[in-house]
Amino acid sequence: MGNPLSDDALDQLFRTARTYNGYHDKPVSNEQLAAIWDLMKMGPTSANMLPARLVWCTSDEAKERLAKHALDSNADKIRKAPVSVVVGMDTDFHEHLPEFFPHTDAKSWFAGDPEGRKVHALRNSSLQGGYFILAARALGLDTGPMSGFNNDDVDAEFFSDTPTVKSNFISTLGYGDPETIYARGPRPDFDRFNSIL
Amino acid sequence: MGNPLSDDALDQLFRTARTYNGYHDKPVSNEQLAAIWDLMKMGPTSANMLPARLVWCTSDEAKERLAKHALDSNADKIRKAPVSVVVGMDTDFHEHLPEFFPHTDAKSWFAGDPEGRKVHALRNSSLQGGYFILAARALGLDTGPMSGFNNDDVDAEFFSDTPTVKSNFISTLGYGDPETIYARGPRPDFDRFNSIL
Repeated sequence: MGNPLSDDALDQLFRTARTYNGYHDKPVSNEQLAAIWDLMKMGPTSANMLPARLVWCTSDEAKERLAKHALDSNADKIRKAPVSVVVGMDTDFHEHLPEFFPHTDAKSWFAGDPEGRKVHALRNSSLQGGYFILAARALGLDTGPMSGFNNDDVDAEFFSDTPTVKSNFISTLGYGDPETIYARGPRPDFDRFNSIL
Repeated sequence: MGNPLSDDALDQLFRTARTYNGYHDKPVSNEQLAAIWDLMKMGPTSANMLPARLVWCTSDEAKERLAKHALDSNADKIRKAPVSVVVGMDTDFHEHLPEFFPHTDAKSWFAGDPEGRKVHALRNSSLQGGYFILAARALGLDTGPMSGFNNDDVDAEFFSDTPTVKSNFISTLGYGDPETIYARGPRPDFDRFNSIL
């Protein structure tokens, strides 16, 4: 049976980790992006549906294509980060379930329910977004997730060839520069938003 | 700048961690539930909105109230687990933003947009769901997240006094029994669902 990770690890994952607005001038390799995926893909999704589809913008050109659809305050962060990633979601995830959930006909649970699939895709690709953030931190990197952008425009920019894929959120990625962050937002005590029955 | 966690830590969080169907007969204390919250609350949400609201069912009576609204295959897992938790989401999260995001009037961004708030609440409470799963694992515990239940009935059962709170997903929690799991579902290579631009 498991034991808690070290205090240093809990700090790196949760307690001293922060959302960064800017990064050190230190590159992030394609191998590191694959290492993040190889961790985050192991996290659970409903019926192993794995709806997340990621576009990692590493070139100045790709970052500019993303930045132009973001709020002004986010666009500059996207341009300057070593990597900026679009976390998308495939609303036709069910097409892959014969491969990813092979022991039963899970595809049929979702095939006739396009509205339900939107909810499943959003819920489960967001779970995967949480895994992405913590996988990056576990590998010594930092993230800057954000929702302030035009989803339809980002979809047209990056997913026009795969119209069942929609953007969920975007994030910057790199080695965070502590000079770029502000005081941490308040966090509520357990009793505020939890009950034990 | 950060370094990767140890291989043992990455295994515990992602690589050998599993979704459990059953647990050892070892209790989980209320202090452990609070420790999970104290980690998961540190994870980022959009504008620090923190929409997740958790109901931890630790008594047989509470677990039965939850189990009766779940699919048959899930009900027994809920009854037998040391703890079963409802991860809910407050669609009126914006009411708290003057406290949680005090440096600007973020409440006004969401106040007139009830449909948009549903999406923000689902996205961000699911992110928090990912933090919940990984916080539990970081503390040596295991989870069994599931979507197979009647959301409306669970809302009526647990959130009738707080009608802006809706159920997102549920999970069991405890020290996982390896006897209760099956072969792991396939996970795709990086090139399958990722692109680098």
